[in-house]
Amino acid sequence: MSTNNAPPAGTRDFLPEDVRRRDFVVAKIRAAYERFGFAPLETPSFERVETLSGKYGDEGEQLIFRVQKRGEKLTEELRKSPVDPKQLADLALRYDLTVPLSRVVAQYQGKLPKFFKRYQIQPVWRADRPQKGRFREFWQCDVDYVGTTSLVAEMEVMQAVGDALAALAFDRFTMRVNDRRVLTGIMEAAGIAPAQHELAIVGVDKLDKIGPDGVRKELVERGIASGSIDVLAPILFASEGGVSGNAARLDAVAHAVENKSATGAAGLATLRELTALLDSVGGLAGRVLFDPSLARGLSYYTGPIFELAVDGLAGSMGGGGRYDALVGMFLGRPIPAVGFSLGLERILVVMEERGMLPSLDVASDVMVLQMDKKLLARAVDLADRLRRAGFRAEIYPEAGAKLGAQFQYADSRKVPLVAFIGDREVEVGTVAIKHLASGKQDLVSLEQAAAHVASLLGRPTP
Amino acid sequence: MSTNNAPPAGTRDFLPEDVRRRDFVVAKIRAAYERFGFAPLETPSFERVETLSGKYGDEGEQLIFRVQKRGEKLTEELRKSPVDPKQLADLALRYDLTVPLSRVVAQYQGKLPKFFKRYQIQPVWRADRPQKGRFREFWQCDVDYVGTTSLVAEMEVMQAVGDALAALAFDRFTMRVNDRRVLTGIMEAAGIAPAQHELAIVGVDKLDKIGPDGVRKELVERGIASGSIDVLAPILFASEGGVSGNAARLDAVAHAVENKSATGAAGLATLRELTALLDSVGGLAGRVLFDPSLARGLSYYTGPIFELAVDGLAGSMGGGGRYDALVGMFLGRPIPAVGFSLGLERILVVMEERGMLPSLDVASDVMVLQMDKKLLARAVDLADRLRRAGFRAEIYPEAGAKLGAQFQYADSRKVPLVAFIGDREVEVGTVAIKHLASGKQDLVSLEQAAAHVASLLGRPTP
Repeated sequence: MSTNNAPPAGTRDFLPEDVRRRDFVVAKIRAAYERFGFAPLETPSFERVETLSGKYGDEGEQLIFRVQKRGEKLTEELRKSPVDPKQLADLALRYDLTVPLSRVVAQYQGKLPKFFKRYQIQPVWRADRPQKGRFREFWQCDVDYVGTTSLVAEMEVMQAVGDALAALAFDRFTMRVNDRRVLTGIMEAAGIAPAQHELAIVGVDKLDKIGPDGVRKELVERGIASGSIDVLAPILFASEGGVSGNAARLDAVAHAVENKSATGAAGLATLRELTALLDSVGGLAGRVLFDPSLARGLSYYTGPIFELAVDGLAGSMGGGGRYDALVGMFLGRPIPAVGFSLGLERILVVMEERGMLPSLDVASDVMVLQMDKKLLARAVDLADRLRRAGFRAEIYPEAGAKLGAQFQYADSRKVPLVAFIGDREVEVGTVAIKHLASGKQDLVSLEQAAAHVASLLGRPTP
Repeated sequence: MSTNNAPPAGTRDFLPEDVRRRDFVVAKIRAAYERFGFAPLETPSFERVETLSGKYGDEGEQLIFRVQKRGEKLTEELRKSPVDPKQLADLALRYDLTVPLSRVVAQYQGKLPKFFKRYQIQPVWRADRPQKGRFREFWQCDVDYVGTTSLVAEMEVMQAVGDALAALAFDRFTMRVNDRRVLTGIMEAAGIAPAQHELAIVGVDKLDKIGPDGVRKELVERGIASGSIDVLAPILFASEGGVSGNAARLDAVAHAVENKSATGAAGLATLRELTALLDSVGGLAGRVLFDPSLARGLSYYTGPIFELAVDGLAGSMGGGGRYDALVGMFLGRPIPAVGFSLGLERILVVMEERGMLPSLDVASDVMVLQMDKKLLARAVDLADRLRRAGFRAEIYPEAGAKLGAQFQYADSRKVPLVAFIGDREVEVGTVAIKHLASGKQDLVSLEQAAAHVASLLGRPTP
C-alpha cells in the first residue's frame, strides 16, 4: 500500500525510548517547580476561537490551528454566499499556556488562592513551517506566579527554573536579566519618542542574531535618529563585564539613565534588589547577568525580563518576565504576574547531543520462556510471583519457538534475565534463571526465584 | 466583562487538586501495565484526515473534530463553487488510540520488536453531545499486544488491567469474557444466515440496557426469524452460574453449539484454555466470568472479547478483545493483536464517589514568612536550605502583610508549617518554626531547621 504512514508534518511519534526520555526530563522540571510551591494546572487542548483570537498579533493569528464546526452549523455557514472563512471554525488548538492561564484566573476567581502559583507542562500547536528542531506540536513547561507585585515572585520563578536546569545536570548556564523599564529609560535618555520605543525594542531584540552593527542598521531603517542611536549604542552594547559585575554594570547604565528617566530609575532599582538577592544565595548565585540589551520581543512585559542561555548553545532555552496587564485580560482589570516558559524540545535536543541523558530502561526485568505448552501454567505462576515482588516480567508468547530463538529475542529486547521451568526443572522442583550478559545460569526453588532475581539485578531483596 | 471564561463545552480545566488525582490514577495504571512488560507510546494529537476517515463507521465519522486548512490552501478551497466541505480540513484530532497504533506499526516496521507490547494513555476527542460524565476531551488508557496469536497475549493484557484495578484498590470487579467465534457459533446453531450475524450481535449487545425481552424484540425487528431466536435465547441468557462455574457454563454452550459449528467449537476451546489459566493463578483468579451474551459492539473483534464490570456500577469500566485484522490496515496484511481500553474518567468518577482516593497534597511543606523587607535575604536563605533538603518551601511574597494574615494564609493553603526569622531570631541566631495544627512553636538554629521540619512532618531526617 502506498499510504503515508508518517506522523503529520511537524509532529512526532514517541516510541517507548522517546517517551522515557521525555518523562525523565519532565519529572525533573515538575519536581523543581514543586519545590518552590508551584502546583500543576492542565487546560483543554482547544479553546473557543474567541478566547484565542486577537491575542497573538497578526503573525501569531495566522499560526493558530482552527477546528471546523460540525454538522448543521457547518452546513449553514457553507450555504452563505460568500462563505465567511472566519465563521467556519468554533474552536482553536492551544497556542500557548498564558492565555489559558488568564482564562482560568478569570473563571475560578473565588476558588484560586490569593497568590496563584501554577506550573503547566502541556503541548501547544502552531502552524509554523516545520524545520529542524521546530515543530507544530511542541511542549512548553511554564511556571507562573500570579497575584503580587512583590519581587519574591520574580525570584521564585527564576530560582525554580534554575533548579530545574541544575536537576537536569546543566552546570554552565546564565540567566540574563533586564527590565522593560530600563529599556524605556535608555530610549528616553537617548531622546527617542515614546511612539518609537516599541519599534526600537524590536530592533534591539535582534542583537543576538545580527550583532551590534546589524542592530544599528536596523534602527536606522526603522527611522530612529542616528543621534539617538549614538547615545543608545554604548549603553546597550557595553562589553560584557562578566556575571559577577552586576552592580558595576547597573551603575554604568544608571549613570547614563537615572536622572533622565524616572521609569528607567525604577527599573534599575528593581534590578539592583533582584540581582543582589539572587547573587547572595541559592542555585542562581553567580549565574545571573544583567544585560541591558536583553529585550524579549513580546510587548506584554512590564517589568523584569529574563532569558536562559546555556553555554555553547545559540539562542535561548526559554525566557519570561513580569507582565502585569495580561493575566487580567478576561477579568477586565490588571492582575500582576511573573512567568517563565522552558521549551521541552530544546532541552531534549541539547541533552541528547551532549550525552546528558542517563540510559533509560523500557525492557522487562525478566522474560519467562516457554518450554512446552503444557507447562504454560507454571510459567504464568512464575511471572506472577516476580511481578508481585515488584519486577517487570513477561512471558515469551509462542510455545512453539526454539529455546535459542527465545534467548535471542530476550537479548535483542535488552531484557537482562530469562527464567524457565522445563520438564527437568519440574522434576526437581526448581526454576532456571539465566543472566544473559554473563551467561551464568542458576537453579533455584520457586520460592527463592524473586530473591535471586533481585540479587542478579543488584536490587534490594523483595 | 461578559466574556465566557468556562472551558469549551465537553472539556474541563484541571486545577491542581484535580491534576493530582488524575496523576495518581494514571501512575498506578502505568505501573501495572509496565509490570507486564508493556512500554509507553505517544502519538500526535492530530492525524491526517485520510488516516482517520473511513475507520469509525458513519456514526463515528460525524464525531471527528477536523482541523481547518490554513492560508492559501483554505482560500483556494473557498474559491471553488460549490465549496466541498470535505476539502476544508487536512487534519483531524485523535479519535481513539487504535488507529494511531496501527499507523505506528506500519511506519516503524523494522524498528519495533516482533511482539510489540505498548500502552498509551492520552486524550482523544469526540464531538459527542456533552452530558454528565461524557466529555468531548477524555483519556483512554490502552494496552495492546501486537504480533502474536498466542493466548499469552490475551492473558497478559487482561492480567495487566486486573492488576491496575487492584492497585487502585478496587476489590470487587469481574472480567466478563466471551469469544466472537462463540457468538458466531450460537448464530450458526440457531440457523441465522451469516449476513444477519452482525445485525444480531448488535441486538444482543444491548442486553445490559434493555434486558432479555428487549433483545428478543430487537432481534425480531431486525428480521431474525423467531424460530432462531427461540434457539438463541436459552443459550445466551442462561441464568448466571457465578464466577466459579466457567467450566460448567462453557459445557452448557458447547452442548448446544459444538457439533453444529466448527467456528463456535474453536472459540469455546480458546475460552476453556484462557479461563482455566486465569482461574488458576494471579490477580484475576476467581474474577473471570464466561458470559455468552457479551458481544462488544465493534465489528473488528475476531476472537476473545472482554469487558470489565465493577460491582455496583452500571455499564463497564472498559473492554477489549482480539482483533487480528485491524492493526495491519495500513500495512495491507493482517497482524494479530489483542487490546484493552480503560476509561480514565469512569475510574475517577467511581473512585471519587466511593472515597477511594487518598488525600493528595498540593501544598508546600513550609511557608517562610516575611517579617520585614530588610530580612528577605535571610528568608530566601532559609527557604533555600529547606528545598535543598528536599522539602517544598515558599516565601510569603508580601513583606507589608501582618504576621497574623500570613499565618492565616498559610493555614488556608493547608501548608502544615510556617517558619520565620525576625529581629529577635536574628539576634539569637535562630529560626522560629510553628506547626499550625498544634500551635506548637520552636526555636532552632538555622543548621537544625531542615531536621526539625522533617521531625515535625514525620519524615526521615535529611
